[in-house]
Amino acid sequence: MVEGPTLVAEALRAGLLVTDVFVDEQADRGDLVSGFGRLHVVASGVLDRVLSTVSPQPWAAVVELPSITATDVLAARGPVVVLAGVQDPGNVGTVIRAAEAAGAAGVLTMEGTADPFSPKVVRSSAGSVLRVPIAAVADDELVDLVRQHMRRLVVTAMAGTTDLWSSAIGDDSVLVLGNEAAGVPSWLIDHAEVVLSIPMRGEVESLNVAMAATLVLFEAARTRSQPGTASAGDK
Amino acid sequence: MVEGPTLVAEALRAGLLVTDVFVDEQADRGDLVSGFGRLHVVASGVLDRVLSTVSPQPWAAVVELPSITATDVLAARGPVVVLAGVQDPGNVGTVIRAAEAAGAAGVLTMEGTADPFSPKVVRSSAGSVLRVPIAAVADDELVDLVRQHMRRLVVTAMAGTTDLWSSAIGDDSVLVLGNEAAGVPSWLIDHAEVVLSIPMRGEVESLNVAMAATLVLFEAARTRSQPGTASAGDK
Repeated sequence: MVEGPTLVAEALRAGLLVTDVFVDEQADRGDLVSGFGRLHVVASGVLDRVLSTVSPQPWAAVVELPSITATDVLAARGPVVVLAGVQDPGNVGTVIRAAEAAGAAGVLTMEGTADPFSPKVVRSSAGSVLRVPIAAVADDELVDLVRQHMRRLVVTAMAGTTDLWSSAIGDDSVLVLGNEAAGVPSWLIDHAEVVLSIPMRGEVESLNVAMAATLVLFEAARTRSQPGTASAGDK
Repeated sequence: MVEGPTLVAEALRAGLLVTDVFVDEQADRGDLVSGFGRLHVVASGVLDRVLSTVSPQPWAAVVELPSITATDVLAARGPVVVLAGVQDPGNVGTVIRAAEAAGAAGVLTMEGTADPFSPKVVRSSAGSVLRVPIAAVADDELVDLVRQHMRRLVVTAMAGTTDLWSSAIGDDSVLVLGNEAAGVPSWLIDHAEVVLSIPMRGEVESLNVAMAATLVLFEAARTRSQPGTASAGDK
């Protein structure tokens, strides 16, 4: 379920199957993109009461997302993001937005991560959840899947030993970001080929996960855009 | 006014003048750092009702911040962040946290920016507002002040022409970030020596201001840590 005229239009533009569109009888329908199933005009105020948004939305739509597996995501080109128990919907949405902006192949959600298709995540992703391939992955299957796809498991952790800027990450990286409080679980750190640390000054203990994800994802994009600078990444 | 035992302890640790500490009579006082003025033990539940926090806090303190001017910030070593009308307290706090983590000299707030010492900003900065030099700057004085301090005015804008990764930013940069909706005002873009653009893929129109600030600040830190890579930055 996506809410608001912008997201409904984005879903249609992204070529997703939009089965039902609900619109407040008083809303402006001038901008409505075609290509959806049924249109339901509802009495004024009904959507406001049903939807989860803080500000009233005169539009909503039921969107069928394509069925995507972890294998699909890992087989695609570009870095992959793994959310290892990221719980805050705002953080999940922001990471998915950063993943799209940085050209990631997709996002995998481990157990304990907020539902990426919940309304709050959809909103905070600014529509990126409609465009970025997203799949769930079982905790006990991730490491094997990463190996099968010849990718490198890269974890960001406070105990990291590899400098973010050492060009250790690139297209084949599977970038794992951990829970807001607990970080990446230690069993997963043990399986990582690279444990990244973000160089920090001051007395900041850590960045929040959305900031860390943005830095790591765009560092992968930078390395890719400037292949001559890669150095520590080959092993 | 800072809220919660962690922030009260941080204020004391940062050497700030803490005139009054309020503590719920039922709270554990074992961790209390010394060095403040008066201690007020208040009846249980009073602070919950007075404070603005969502979760109840058994601690609060009145902190006197040192008086810092825009000139102080611009005279210090390291990049300076300018918030040009950033309105969301969460964004302001996150940017200040990123500024500390990336080793910025400080933060200047232009007119229309959320009060950096409001409780919501203090919280979302994870205490960085207590450690990072922050000053207000009048809109019509900023450009002259930047010139007087021989610094380079660098604006991040969707219409940017300089690639984020071209090493155009460094210690002498004054990094301007704009309002969530309107961006950096055009009169200020006209005065910029560098108009940065963040290379993006997908159909993402823009990153949110906290993500953009994080990328720009850490790019300045990266350039500084690897002086050999600087190229386009000299003019």
